[in-house]
Amino acid sequence: MGNPKHIALLGSTGSIGRSSLEVIARLPDRFRVRYLTAHRNIDLLARQIRHFRPRAVVVHEQESASLIRTLIDGNTDVLVGEEGLCEVVTRDDVDTVLSSLVGFAGLRPTYAAVEAGKDIALANKETLVVGGAIIMPKARERGVRILPVDSEHSAILQCLQGEDLDSVARLTLTASGGPFRERNATELAAVTKEEALNHPTWRMGQKITVDSATLMNKGLEVIEAFWLFGLPPEKIEVVIHPQSIIHSMVEFVDGSMKAQLGIPDMKIPIQYALTYPERLPAPYARVDFSTLGEMTFFQPDTEKFRCLPLAYEALRAGGSAPTVLNAANEVAVSMFLEERIPLTAIPDVIQNALASHRSTPAPTLDDLVRIDRDTRESVLQQHIVPG
Amino acid sequence: MGNPKHIALLGSTGSIGRSSLEVIARLPDRFRVRYLTAHRNIDLLARQIRHFRPRAVVVHEQESASLIRTLIDGNTDVLVGEEGLCEVVTRDDVDTVLSSLVGFAGLRPTYAAVEAGKDIALANKETLVVGGAIIMPKARERGVRILPVDSEHSAILQCLQGEDLDSVARLTLTASGGPFRERNATELAAVTKEEALNHPTWRMGQKITVDSATLMNKGLEVIEAFWLFGLPPEKIEVVIHPQSIIHSMVEFVDGSMKAQLGIPDMKIPIQYALTYPERLPAPYARVDFSTLGEMTFFQPDTEKFRCLPLAYEALRAGGSAPTVLNAANEVAVSMFLEERIPLTAIPDVIQNALASHRSTPAPTLDDLVRIDRDTRESVLQQHIVPG
Repeated sequence: MGNPKHIALLGSTGSIGRSSLEVIARLPDRFRVRYLTAHRNIDLLARQIRHFRPRAVVVHEQESASLIRTLIDGNTDVLVGEEGLCEVVTRDDVDTVLSSLVGFAGLRPTYAAVEAGKDIALANKETLVVGGAIIMPKARERGVRILPVDSEHSAILQCLQGEDLDSVARLTLTASGGPFRERNATELAAVTKEEALNHPTWRMGQKITVDSATLMNKGLEVIEAFWLFGLPPEKIEVVIHPQSIIHSMVEFVDGSMKAQLGIPDMKIPIQYALTYPERLPAPYARVDFSTLGEMTFFQPDTEKFRCLPLAYEALRAGGSAPTVLNAANEVAVSMFLEERIPLTAIPDVIQNALASHRSTPAPTLDDLVRIDRDTRESVLQQHIVPG
Repeated sequence: MGNPKHIALLGSTGSIGRSSLEVIARLPDRFRVRYLTAHRNIDLLARQIRHFRPRAVVVHEQESASLIRTLIDGNTDVLVGEEGLCEVVTRDDVDTVLSSLVGFAGLRPTYAAVEAGKDIALANKETLVVGGAIIMPKARERGVRILPVDSEHSAILQCLQGEDLDSVARLTLTASGGPFRERNATELAAVTKEEALNHPTWRMGQKITVDSATLMNKGLEVIEAFWLFGLPPEKIEVVIHPQSIIHSMVEFVDGSMKAQLGIPDMKIPIQYALTYPERLPAPYARVDFSTLGEMTFFQPDTEKFRCLPLAYEALRAGGSAPTVLNAANEVAVSMFLEERIPLTAIPDVIQNALASHRSTPAPTLDDLVRIDRDTRESVLQQHIVPG
């Protein structure tokens, strides 16, 4: 069994972070939590510190750092901001970085961890969406594994075990279709924030839940699959499967397909990414086919859910286009959550941003950071609420 | 790529045999047909000989041998009976024996092939049902692979690629449920031979089609899975899945499941068994999830389909019990096809045979042959049509 793996968990107070700590707490012989990081949920972070005794934590702002210091004893250092993130992930006592940061913020810390030769368990899909062209070659160069935590990519990784990548004909990502699959265009324009945050099968953070409602989440996953598995866009398809039991599928050149299935519980792919390629017993609920009834499948409606074709468009354009797609989406989702724009305006915002962007073909990390910032500013400027 | 594999195809004129020759004909650089064998379909065998130019063929009777000699040129030898089968499968110019014989008849030739160190592509599940305890240790001793051609076991083999057998929690064999899933007990007693031979999803030979209608086919597959994958009966379950798209599933200890899917076409598992562990491109139809609609799942009704629990009972009893189960079933199916007993009498025949049998705990091959013959005679005697 060897020594326990030492983990730096980025984003420990979010949905994936909390589930990851549940998985880790069940396997104390296997894993040690060395570093935790949180955005603003300081109370929960303090509780996590008392339980897991990390060597250091990273918080978003100085103010949070001061606060957390009053809540814990002196055995845990407190660091701040992106600099703190990039520092802890590169420390010698880290084996694996589990990144469940939200959005573009995951890019630099993940890159730093890869550069330092750490294995990555990746729940932050935006990192590969914007930086796949930089992260993946660096991971190969450093001999580092990028193991997906997303249930869809975990499913594909599982289906590919013992198979030759050259024998893959197609990847089929399943999508629940979100809560609005059966709404018409008018109804879709009128959905509220509360409705959008009520996902039918998965309990997740706000950003990803809205992305699921617009199918942008699936679009980002298509781009992530492109980078993780190296298949061209035309070999990556999306099918709507409302029950979320089949988490994704691989079709091989001989006409055979493999699927990975399970109840919708992120702890299963989290544990798989951490123990890969081993599987360890886990107490999570099983699919019961005698009571499951039916599994259904539909083509996604790309007229109604335009974020999905926009993601394919950005992937095909390549270069900095996915960064623009992602930045415009992050801002648009925030504006929707602030009730400043309707759900149906999210693809408009993205389409406008992509249309006005001149793509940089081989952007550096600094280029991506600049393009991300410029896109956000430009989107926000177009939506200034007249004072 | 290496030299082509030399194939002895047992049962070349049956459904699996014909599909196998289609697969082989598409891959002439990979495979050479060296031997073909047929029961009584001499016209088709003659056409196959002219096309594939085997070195020898084996037929069931002297009469058929004489007939076939008049239909072909002198380059193909003609042998007869079980002796002929056991002779050709052991010849030096055979790499792989694809056995698609029907029923108990497959046992001795398969054993001879294993003993001679040939890889086996096995479509004849009865061989493992009756002789698993003899065949499997011999295969391990000779370093021989037993690769399943049955779609269910091929599915499980595919799902197990790259996985540790110790991490398997459960195998789930899917069953179409046959044509009579929704009949009540009275209707079931009245089904005709023609109705029974009209399987909803698979085109197969008569014996296996009747076995599918009674669910005995699934019972035999449970026993076959026990021998192929070494899991105890309580870890092998059956679920009814009328669309026959998921061909079987594996559940792992971490709660994750894998399934293999495909359109119901035996050429896919046949090719996989022949090219294993490689996959080669094939032109067979793909599952189209946008038009598939739904997949449904049910518990099997073991009150109505008693052959399935009888198979579990014989597997748990072990020793010679599965041989009695199989022999009684073969005779009962023949009697049903001769319209001498109703479909619902098949489990009665088997239950009586099992009840009156004193199990031999570790039968030899000769014991099995004797017990098979005794069971057949005893079942037939109880059903003599009064003259």
